Amino acid sequence: MYALYYSPGTASFVVHWLLIEMGIEHELRPVDMEARAHKNAEYLALNPNGVVPTLIVDGQPRYEAAGLAMFLADRHPQAGLAPALDDPQRAEYNQWMFNLANTLQSPLRLWWYPWDLQAGDEAVRAGAQTRIEATCERLDAQLAKQGPYLLGERLSAADFYLTMLMRWTRKMPRPAHDWPHLGAFAQRMKARPSFAAVYEREGLTEWA
Amino acid sequence: MYALYYSPGTASFVVHWLLIEMGIEHELRPVDMEARAHKNAEYLALNPNGVVPTLIVDGQPRYEAAGLAMFLADRHPQAGLAPALDDPQRAEYNQWMFNLANTLQSPLRLWWYPWDLQAGDEAVRAGAQTRIEATCERLDAQLAKQGPYLLGERLSAADFYLTMLMRWTRKMPRPAHDWPHLGAFAQRMKARPSFAAVYEREGLTEWA
Repeated sequence: MYALYYSPGTASFVVHWLLIEMGIEHELRPVDMEARAHKNAEYLALNPNGVVPTLIVDGQPRYEAAGLAMFLADRHPQAGLAPALDDPQRAEYNQWMFNLANTLQSPLRLWWYPWDLQAGDEAVRAGAQTRIEATCERLDAQLAKQGPYLLGERLSAADFYLTMLMRWTRKMPRPAHDWPHLGAFAQRMKARPSFAAVYEREGLTEWA
Repeated sequence: MYALYYSPGTASFVVHWLLIEMGIEHELRPVDMEARAHKNAEYLALNPNGVVPTLIVDGQPRYEAAGLAMFLADRHPQAGLAPALDDPQRAEYNQWMFNLANTLQSPLRLWWYPWDLQAGDEAVRAGAQTRIEATCERLDAQLAKQGPYLLGERLSAADFYLTMLMRWTRKMPRPAHDWPHLGAFAQRMKARPSFAAVYEREGLTEWA
């Protein structure tokens, strides 16, 4: 039994979505980020980074959305969302999980919270935007060459992670779905019943 | 048989170190970064991100240092550097791999290549430094609470990754080894014979 500390539409989204997609029983624990509940002592004792998600696994608090996504996909292999450790596509799967973290989630964070860097918000945003758009270009080329998913014909947790990150670009000057293969990819992922379910449970409407 | 495209002391270091630590046969292919060989068409065909490392796995080029570190540790379980998928510490292991990528490698990249962000080098560096030092504070507290390694008594690939990232802070205003538990941790990791071996093969001397 898992318990997920989450806030709608944040990095907890991919973990929440995968729990639903894989049909895994879980309890939801909302974190009121407007009230700064992610920075209070009780929450920081669970997650010293003061961010969501935190997932209670076997009674212990664990964090980092992408790490949790990989963990859930590995621990529930019947869902088929992670190549097994001896599968020829395992290195490729690991590659995409970290590549999304490094070249998409990291500059997205700078774009949305440029003041974290204390370096002039618009300048940081411009630099982050360049990096995000370069990543979209690369990912679009990847899907063109070997789609429709990051591992080709095979759906994996990396695709759920990419979809969440694409969602975060929806109000940027050039949203990721504007690239043709990324756009078709997002349509395909958004057509999954679990996507509608996680939207309903988190009360989300935009980019549906 | 693996082939590693590398450049001394860069992100390829952790992959090279783990190949030696785990006693895995491999071939080294130096990438002359001063000659911008990581940006030529031949290399970009292997790794469209234009960075090292690239590891040839089963004849295919794979990238992202942390993803490759996890892959090697999983594929060679006799080395004991990754908790198995059903091990209670697997979620914790995944957590540290992504936490290091997000909260240490990502701001370190900004510190070393602030011009990537087009936002005023010194300002970006100051912001990145704040984030790096906050991460060191958290990691030092973690090792104090549950050391001597990130998973407690158990050495894992995450410790090799952390050591590489600590090495990158050696010329910063406050190097990571200045925190007491991180400093003791680095001493322990640097005492491994594989550390001396990778230093010798890459021709490194600093921070030995």
